[in-house]
Amino acid sequence: MLTTLPLSEEVAYLKRSVMRDLLKLAVSPDIISLAGGLPASEFLPLHEFQQCLNTVLERDGARALQYSPQSTELREWIAAYMTQRGVKCDVDDIFITSGNQQGLSILSRLLLNHDDAAVIEQITFTGIQQVTAGRGAHVLTVPTDLQTGVDLDALEDAFREHPRLAVLIPDFHNPLGVSLSAHKRQAIAALAARYGVAIIEDDPYSALRFAGETLPPIKAYDEADVVFYLGSFSKMLAPAMRLGWIVAPRELMPKITVLRESFDLESSTLTQRAVYEFLSQGLLEPHLKRLNAVNHERRSTMMDALNEHLGDLAHWTQPEGGLFVWVTLPENIDTWVMFGSAVAQNVAYIPGASFAVDGGFTNTMRLNFSNVSPAQIHEGIKRLAEVIKTWTL
Amino acid sequence: MLTTLPLSEEVAYLKRSVMRDLLKLAVSPDIISLAGGLPASEFLPLHEFQQCLNTVLERDGARALQYSPQSTELREWIAAYMTQRGVKCDVDDIFITSGNQQGLSILSRLLLNHDDAAVIEQITFTGIQQVTAGRGAHVLTVPTDLQTGVDLDALEDAFREHPRLAVLIPDFHNPLGVSLSAHKRQAIAALAARYGVAIIEDDPYSALRFAGETLPPIKAYDEADVVFYLGSFSKMLAPAMRLGWIVAPRELMPKITVLRESFDLESSTLTQRAVYEFLSQGLLEPHLKRLNAVNHERRSTMMDALNEHLGDLAHWTQPEGGLFVWVTLPENIDTWVMFGSAVAQNVAYIPGASFAVDGGFTNTMRLNFSNVSPAQIHEGIKRLAEVIKTWTL
Repeated sequence: MLTTLPLSEEVAYLKRSVMRDLLKLAVSPDIISLAGGLPASEFLPLHEFQQCLNTVLERDGARALQYSPQSTELREWIAAYMTQRGVKCDVDDIFITSGNQQGLSILSRLLLNHDDAAVIEQITFTGIQQVTAGRGAHVLTVPTDLQTGVDLDALEDAFREHPRLAVLIPDFHNPLGVSLSAHKRQAIAALAARYGVAIIEDDPYSALRFAGETLPPIKAYDEADVVFYLGSFSKMLAPAMRLGWIVAPRELMPKITVLRESFDLESSTLTQRAVYEFLSQGLLEPHLKRLNAVNHERRSTMMDALNEHLGDLAHWTQPEGGLFVWVTLPENIDTWVMFGSAVAQNVAYIPGASFAVDGGFTNTMRLNFSNVSPAQIHEGIKRLAEVIKTWTL
Repeated sequence: MLTTLPLSEEVAYLKRSVMRDLLKLAVSPDIISLAGGLPASEFLPLHEFQQCLNTVLERDGARALQYSPQSTELREWIAAYMTQRGVKCDVDDIFITSGNQQGLSILSRLLLNHDDAAVIEQITFTGIQQVTAGRGAHVLTVPTDLQTGVDLDALEDAFREHPRLAVLIPDFHNPLGVSLSAHKRQAIAALAARYGVAIIEDDPYSALRFAGETLPPIKAYDEADVVFYLGSFSKMLAPAMRLGWIVAPRELMPKITVLRESFDLESSTLTQRAVYEFLSQGLLEPHLKRLNAVNHERRSTMMDALNEHLGDLAHWTQPEGGLFVWVTLPENIDTWVMFGSAVAQNVAYIPGASFAVDGGFTNTMRLNFSNVSPAQIHEGIKRLAEVIKTWTL
C-alpha cells in the first residue's frame, strides 16, 4: 500500500534527477557514453591498492575493521600535501570526510540557515545545487567566463546582498572544464574577507592537471580564515575509498565533528589506513603521472575530433585537466530534445541545461573524456556531429 | 586567527560530547574500560573478510573501486534476510546506507520539519538525540520499562500530540540492554498506524542475540507501511564496512535516494561487494555463532561479578544479546561525580545521565561487556564496586 505519512518540507526542494532516468535509456552496450563522470577504470591503481589493503589487514589485524578516530597519519599527510600547495595548515586544520559531497553537506549545515542567501555559479555541479537550493536557501547565481572562471564583478554584486557563503570550483570545473585564473583566486579570497562571506572551495579535480601551470587554491590566499577547502581522493585515487577532506579553521573542528557524527558517525578505518599506506609508499605520484598522461591523450583526441567534425558549428572549453569538456551548439538546438536522436545513433552526453540553476543553456552539453578510449572518442564525436547536423538543417 | 563567520542556528542545538572529553582521561593502559561500544576486536572475521576483499578485487578488477549503483545482490540478500525475520519485502524496499546513523539522518530529513514533534525514549542512544533534539525538533520523551521496553501508555499519550515520528530500539537497547516484548512490538505498529506516526526502528543489535527467544521486528507487524526499519552490518560483521540498510515503503525510494546523494553520494562499491561475498559464502552464520558465544560468556561473567560485588547495592538489566548492561546505583551516588574516582582506580564506564534526554538518572551507568575479556570484567567490576562502596559510606 502507499504510505500516508506526510514528508518534510525540505524534500520538496530536492529535485529528482531527470538525467538519471534519461540515462537509463542509454544502457545498450553499443552506446558510446560521453555522459559519464568516472575516472578511467582501467587506470585505477588496482594492484597497488589491493596490496595496501592486505598490508594493513596483516599489520593491524582486526583494529583495521573497528570503529576508530580519524587517522592522524592520513590527516598529517593531507596537511603536508596542502602546505606544499601553498595552504598554511597543520594536522589540526584537517577533517576527514567520505568525499566532497559530504564536505558540502557538512559545511552547508554548519554555515547556512534555511532562509540565508548562498552564491553559486549559474552553471554548476548538481551536488552543489542540492546543498544550497536543495535545502531551501535563497540562491544568488553568478555567471562564469569560459576562459577564466567566475565573473568577479557579479560575485561582488552578489556579496553585497549579504550571503553566508559562496561555493566555487577552482580547477577543471564540473561541468564547464574551466579553471579560475590565478588573479581571480587571489581576488576571491580578498572579496570574501572584505564582505565576510565564507567560500567553500570544492576541489575534487586539481590533482588531475595534465597541461598548463599548477595554481594554488583560493585557500592559499585566505588570510582572513573564511575559505573552507574540500579535497577528495575519489578522482585522484579511487571513488570506492569514499574519502575526502576539509581544511577549515581549527576552532570550528568540534562543531564539524559533532555535525559529521550526526550524519554517519565516521569514515571507514580500513579505507583510511589503506589510502595512507598507498600514499606513504609513494604510489600517488606515479599513479597520477600515468592517469594524467591518459587523460591528456583523451582530451587531445576529443579536441581533435571536435575540430574535425564540429569546427564550424560549435565551440567548446579547453580543459587543462579534470574530466569534462563543455560544448556550446547553435542556439536553435535544444540538447534535451536532441538527446533521443543521439541515443538512437548510439552516443550519449549530458544536456547542459541539467546543470543550469536558473534555466537556459539549452544549446549546451557536457562531454566526458576520461573514461572513454581514444577510438571511442573519435567515433562518439563523429556520431554526435552527424546528429547535430541533422538538427541544424 | 579566529574566524569571524556566523554559524547556522542548527549547530547551536548540537551538543558537544562531554563524554568524549571525559574519556580522554581514561586512556592509561592500566585502565579497564567498560565504557566502550565496540564489538570484540579479536572475534571480528578478519581472515574471512580479507579473503572476500581479495576475491572481489581479483574477480571484478577496477570496477570494484569505481562509483556504482547500490549492489543489487546485497539488497537481494538483505530482502531475503528480512523476509526470514518476518518482514514482507523485496529488493525494491531495501536502501543501502553507510550504517544506522546515516539511516537516522536520512529519515529525520525525510520526515521531520524543524518545528515538528518527535518521540524518543527518556534514555536513548545519543545518535538518536542528535537527529531529533539536535535538529531543533520539539522532542516528546517517554519512559522505558527495564524489563519490557518503552511504556505503551506514555507512547500513546505522546502520539496524541501529533508527532511526525518516534524512534525506538527493539533489541538490546543502547544503553539500557532491554528488548521490547513481542506484545509491545505488535502494539507499537498498531498505535503508529492508528495515529499516523512514523516509527523509525533502529536495530543494529538483533543479530547479536545469545539467549531468549528471537522476536520479529516491529516492522513485521507493520500493515500500514508506517515503520522504517534500520539494520546494520557494523556490529554483526564489522564497523569499518560502514554499511547498513533501510527497509522503507518503495514509493519513497526516489526521495530517499536524492536525500542520500545530497549527503555523501553513495556507499563504497568495494565494501558492498566484499560484504556480499562474505554473506553469499555462508560465512555469517558461523561468525555470529562464535561471536555470540563469546558475548554470552562475557555477559554471564558480568552478571556474576555484579552479583558478587554489588548484589546488595545496585540493580541492573539482564540483556539477552547486544553489548550493554544498565546499572542503577543508590540514589545518593552521582556517576558523573564518581567518574574521576573510578578512573583513579583504573576502571571506566559511561555515566547514564549522558543518555538522559531530560536530565536525571544521575545514579546510573552503562557498562559494556563485549570488548573486555572475562578476566578484565571480573577485575573491572571488583574495582568499580570498591569505588561505589566508598561513595555509599
